[in-house]
Amino acid sequence: MTHSQRRDRLRARLEAADLAAMLVTDLVNVRYLSGFTGSNAALLILADTPGAVLATDGRYRTQAAQQAPDVEAVIDRAVGPCLVARAGAARVGRLGFESHVVTVDGHRGLLEAATDIELVRAPRTVEALREVKDAGEIALLRLACEAADAALTDLVERGGLRPGRTEKEVGRELESLMLDHGADGVSFETIVAAGANSAIPHHRPTDAVLATGDFVKIDFGALVAGYHSDMTRTFVLGRAEQWQRDIYTLVSDAQRAGREALGAGVALKDVDAASRQVIADAGHAENFGHGLGHGVGLQIHEAPGINSMAAGTLLAGSAVTVEPGVYLPGRGGVRIEDTLVVSEESDTPDLLTRFPKELAIL
Amino acid sequence: MTHSQRRDRLRARLEAADLAAMLVTDLVNVRYLSGFTGSNAALLILADTPGAVLATDGRYRTQAAQQAPDVEAVIDRAVGPCLVARAGAARVGRLGFESHVVTVDGHRGLLEAATDIELVRAPRTVEALREVKDAGEIALLRLACEAADAALTDLVERGGLRPGRTEKEVGRELESLMLDHGADGVSFETIVAAGANSAIPHHRPTDAVLATGDFVKIDFGALVAGYHSDMTRTFVLGRAEQWQRDIYTLVSDAQRAGREALGAGVALKDVDAASRQVIADAGHAENFGHGLGHGVGLQIHEAPGINSMAAGTLLAGSAVTVEPGVYLPGRGGVRIEDTLVVSEESDTPDLLTRFPKELAIL
Repeated sequence: MTHSQRRDRLRARLEAADLAAMLVTDLVNVRYLSGFTGSNAALLILADTPGAVLATDGRYRTQAAQQAPDVEAVIDRAVGPCLVARAGAARVGRLGFESHVVTVDGHRGLLEAATDIELVRAPRTVEALREVKDAGEIALLRLACEAADAALTDLVERGGLRPGRTEKEVGRELESLMLDHGADGVSFETIVAAGANSAIPHHRPTDAVLATGDFVKIDFGALVAGYHSDMTRTFVLGRAEQWQRDIYTLVSDAQRAGREALGAGVALKDVDAASRQVIADAGHAENFGHGLGHGVGLQIHEAPGINSMAAGTLLAGSAVTVEPGVYLPGRGGVRIEDTLVVSEESDTPDLLTRFPKELAIL
Repeated sequence: MTHSQRRDRLRARLEAADLAAMLVTDLVNVRYLSGFTGSNAALLILADTPGAVLATDGRYRTQAAQQAPDVEAVIDRAVGPCLVARAGAARVGRLGFESHVVTVDGHRGLLEAATDIELVRAPRTVEALREVKDAGEIALLRLACEAADAALTDLVERGGLRPGRTEKEVGRELESLMLDHGADGVSFETIVAAGANSAIPHHRPTDAVLATGDFVKIDFGALVAGYHSDMTRTFVLGRAEQWQRDIYTLVSDAQRAGREALGAGVALKDVDAASRQVIADAGHAENFGHGLGHGVGLQIHEAPGINSMAAGTLLAGSAVTVEPGVYLPGRGGVRIEDTLVVSEESDTPDLLTRFPKELAIL
């Protein structure tokens, strides 16, 4: 889908919400709708006029012309207010703005520029479009997941996960391997958590040394053309004790239950519950303290959130993670996570992260 | 300075602003004041009570106890509203909030939790403290700059900048070398811009191949314990034409003028003007389309901004960049950038990035 087609989809939503125009100030949304990736930008889209107006500052004059050749560029450092003024000149009545992104102070600046314009809260309007990926986006997510799969395969095959190495060394090698396999960068700071550290859900790599008998939990992703992969695998070094086998099997069962619950139209909280119940039934409810998953795309965390408090249902074409975990403080933890694309309810979701999930004792 | 001492400095500001407490929701500010680095957190500091309350969610229970042992931790996903309610229970009257960070929708959530509390806009209160670095912060900035210096030195010495390599290859090698020299990560996506690409101020590395006669502009930084270095150097490959020597000398002169203008009490816009005037006098005013510099610390861009529209003056102890550039579209550009710590007016600033700035033809 072209950027112009995405803007047309937004126009349909504006008309449904009785908005004459939308001011997009979230930079990821600006990128989604225009292709522009600079660090200071806003986009104005009128419901009844083709095209769009991109505001940015002088640093990005050349880049704006290259990345977003099909929109009008305006060079003005005050990107939001200048587009509100522009909307006023176009006699826009109700102008939607991203109230989940615009700050209290930023809103003041917009109001000062608004003459005969009503600024209307329109949170997550573009995010709602982004929740369903188009074919081009899924192709990029697949490339990102393939780069991550290939990197972890290489790491394991070359013996990169072995006693004596530090968490940091492992993380750095894995990140380098992702770049070797075509990633533009990493999705987020790689988590490598060994031994008792694996009980910390979002541990940052340290100089802690991997030892025989450790769980090693690795949560990482590759970035390709702006799209993020996200995968977690947990290994055991040398030999696994029974408690380790038990919680690994438990998390594996819970993760399968979560994957199998995915389907268009299914309530998000029911997906979470399908996986969480497996862990609760084993008496570990309190050792799984985070949501089951989240959308991935141009951001590592985006709509939909899959957790016990989520409203709404899954949509066909959403790319989401399924990542239950069980964490035993002071001992160790297991998380298993895949990225998948949701299919129609009766169909199996498309598994993008294909690295094996059986317990591997390295 | 300990986190507790930093909170005491904030308390003094709260009393001066007649605020009974401050709700800190910016994650960098939370880190500065508590040491906690998780991705969902808020901090409540009462003006008349020692300590602080840190709210975060269940993922970070262990991490909060490790990183911020001297504050009370509250586990609640709605980190802002739960601390507003807490402030209400403590009979706080005027509660400052970060209106430059809190979104319009987030503000609604805070208001709903505010019973008998007045939410008062208090933008950039913690940022103002952060503008003056303490000794520990300067030590970390120095380490970050040293890692960057050492990496670029290695890159040049091993012949890493040569015709035939791509911008991406050079960027990746430089980033790897920074990690070799002790960086925890990179400050921002490394800019490597060869030939005509060097005329794009914030070019992202591509597969473009370096060629003899090219300018190669490299803007990069190392991250050490959360602190960012920032440096730009521009080289010429093989042989330099006269126009290249001319703009290099011009930018070099302008950069020196900017550095020499640094001093406590000097107006920020005068520092910008001191450097910009050199470029304007040579007829290149329109080819220098960005500000002269910015503060660096826990963020790559922080207060103070040094540009023609900046209000205020430099403070002793601020860490700032000085980075003029001249960009000739379609031909090439030069930027030279250092990170320095501002001294008293009569004293020379402390140059943290020490890689040579003479024109190097490689």
